[in-house]
Amino acid sequence: MASEKPMVAVTCTAPVNIAVIKYWGKRDEDLVLPINSSLSVTLHQDQLKTTTTAAISKDFTEDRIWLNGREEDVEQPRLQACLREIRRLARKRRSTGDEDPAALGLSYKVHVASVNNFPTAAGLASSAAGYACLAYTLAQVYGVESDLSEVARRGSGSACRSLYGGFVEWQMGERADGKDSIARQVAPESHWPELRVLILVVSAEKKLTGSTAGMRTSVETSPLLRFRAESVVPARMAEMARCVQERDFPGFAQLTMKDSNQFHATCLDTFPPISYLSDTSRRVMLLVHRFNAHHGRTKVAYTFDAGPNAVVFALHDTVPEFVAAVRHCFPPESNGDKFLKGLPVPPVPLSDELKAALDVDPTPGGVKYIIATQVGPGPQILEDPRAHLLGPDGLPKPAA
Amino acid sequence: MASEKPMVAVTCTAPVNIAVIKYWGKRDEDLVLPINSSLSVTLHQDQLKTTTTAAISKDFTEDRIWLNGREEDVEQPRLQACLREIRRLARKRRSTGDEDPAALGLSYKVHVASVNNFPTAAGLASSAAGYACLAYTLAQVYGVESDLSEVARRGSGSACRSLYGGFVEWQMGERADGKDSIARQVAPESHWPELRVLILVVSAEKKLTGSTAGMRTSVETSPLLRFRAESVVPARMAEMARCVQERDFPGFAQLTMKDSNQFHATCLDTFPPISYLSDTSRRVMLLVHRFNAHHGRTKVAYTFDAGPNAVVFALHDTVPEFVAAVRHCFPPESNGDKFLKGLPVPPVPLSDELKAALDVDPTPGGVKYIIATQVGPGPQILEDPRAHLLGPDGLPKPAA
Repeated sequence: MASEKPMVAVTCTAPVNIAVIKYWGKRDEDLVLPINSSLSVTLHQDQLKTTTTAAISKDFTEDRIWLNGREEDVEQPRLQACLREIRRLARKRRSTGDEDPAALGLSYKVHVASVNNFPTAAGLASSAAGYACLAYTLAQVYGVESDLSEVARRGSGSACRSLYGGFVEWQMGERADGKDSIARQVAPESHWPELRVLILVVSAEKKLTGSTAGMRTSVETSPLLRFRAESVVPARMAEMARCVQERDFPGFAQLTMKDSNQFHATCLDTFPPISYLSDTSRRVMLLVHRFNAHHGRTKVAYTFDAGPNAVVFALHDTVPEFVAAVRHCFPPESNGDKFLKGLPVPPVPLSDELKAALDVDPTPGGVKYIIATQVGPGPQILEDPRAHLLGPDGLPKPAA
Repeated sequence: MASEKPMVAVTCTAPVNIAVIKYWGKRDEDLVLPINSSLSVTLHQDQLKTTTTAAISKDFTEDRIWLNGREEDVEQPRLQACLREIRRLARKRRSTGDEDPAALGLSYKVHVASVNNFPTAAGLASSAAGYACLAYTLAQVYGVESDLSEVARRGSGSACRSLYGGFVEWQMGERADGKDSIARQVAPESHWPELRVLILVVSAEKKLTGSTAGMRTSVETSPLLRFRAESVVPARMAEMARCVQERDFPGFAQLTMKDSNQFHATCLDTFPPISYLSDTSRRVMLLVHRFNAHHGRTKVAYTFDAGPNAVVFALHDTVPEFVAAVRHCFPPESNGDKFLKGLPVPPVPLSDELKAALDVDPTPGGVKYIIATQVGPGPQILEDPRAHLLGPDGLPKPAA
């Protein structure tokens, strides 16, 4: 029902991020505090993003949320934690007296609508983009200007890394209340313009073990995970930051692969064990190592989150040959024309030497498609009111 | 050519062993000294064994060796190390003067023939049985009665564990010369008569990364492996010995699975990473965990060596139902009648509840066949001269 009272609506977008030093394991489940710091690359929103509209109105009788057009339970604990935290920050700001209390609409209920432009729950960290976008959008609506790490983190730990563009670290912090467990930018998106990111989608099935449950079991049962968090990651954080600062691609690439492998090693050391990598994932790993061996230097790197999809890093001038190598090892099925999405990649022939070096029996359809993207900026505000996902009645607009 | 001089020939058999606390990584490559202790179960020779004949004769002009009917290079370093070591022990014995020097035939060349009754290089630790058998047989020929750990170990580390039946530990030792890196029996084969072992053969392909090279890369590159060896294995060795002593199947089973998983985790943490587990291996793991979950207790355990074949432990009264579950998840291909080899296992129907609990899409042919066996004795001497693999001329007999 349309309201005569003014409704305040804001629409923002936020990016997906992919960790190159992995986050796996919480030291505090409620506050979502990690057992180690992590470092990620923010992907460009031209290819992957969440869009969220938040609206507050005196007329709304309850908080409500719609994800990809479907209303979801607003009572779920992570969502409630985000709402509680943003309202706490808004109240804190009001109490300092530098804003008209009424304008903050703190007593108003909120409606939220959010859509992804990519499939959820396929290992593409949709929750990170989603909760970063929620935190960022709510902050606009409620006029909050302080650090949003905690708001995003309470929704999904890695979401705090999607609050910034470029290269981002999530410092684990030491305090029990988590106030120092925050994200910060290591380098902006303009820092390394040659860097490209390829997402090799190998399966859109829903994953077997969710990250939250998986992390908990790993923390409880894997002796290797504790060692990794305490004794391996600190030096790797420093080394990765150096590689990024100096744009040292071989260093960046090797450490990225090692850290992905170590994360999956701790999953296997979990009891019962967790397996996110499939045979196709392992074939991609082998392809990358053979591609690099053929060239005599590390030109390509893979990393895998809690799913079988590979995320591949390369410098722009390596991308065409690597994509040709992927096509060679995983011949596209019928939809050959849609095999490559995102940034254009010119086709190039594959040398017989490289074909021989890859030495694989092709697996048709093993890789469903590739999304070519690059490093991108943090959350954005969409000023055009036509971008709102909620209509003047506070309900989702019908999909166009 | 037949000789008129007497030829001394001895034929022995030795068993395969499967580690439940895994050996992975050497601290000394030449002496084959491990970075951690390990513990294994000796499998019964009725199903899996190596048979070796060693013969010495004044007429032999050079050392020669035949494996599975084919002559191999006797100069290969591991074989030379075994021969050198056994002759050193024989000389040592002669120098103590309690034997007729001439009878020891120390100056004679040796001919060796060895056959396995199972496929080599398929992850079934053929080298362990092979070098244990070589060490044991040479010891008979040369009249050596001292500990043979070092002779076997120099051929293949885990071979020293095949020198005994039942449950065997290989103590890593501390000395730089390796004199205290020896195998000893934890419990004899009669200790736990209900224990059964199923080998699920999922692939007979030659493995991608050999153990020797794999271990070396792991030691050089995996931070998790070092931690495992130093900080995890010692307590696990004590716990595993306790489980065996007390015949605590759930404890034995869980620790066996955890240690297999941790070994494969360190392979994945190696750079470039090593993968021995295939998707079928992982399906077997999932089957075992779901089977146990359905029963509400740990009735079955898996372990994997450097290959995709699963070795499964269960008590005898669990075997028929588990084999039925394997048949359900991996329907045998055409050779259904040869799916089960070794000890007889009566067919039993699978309950609908268990079928539902397994919740799998069957993978036809995923498991090629099962070898059902049990804990067995150590090396044996075959007294019947017809068992000799070498004829009176010192050359391999034609295959029967």
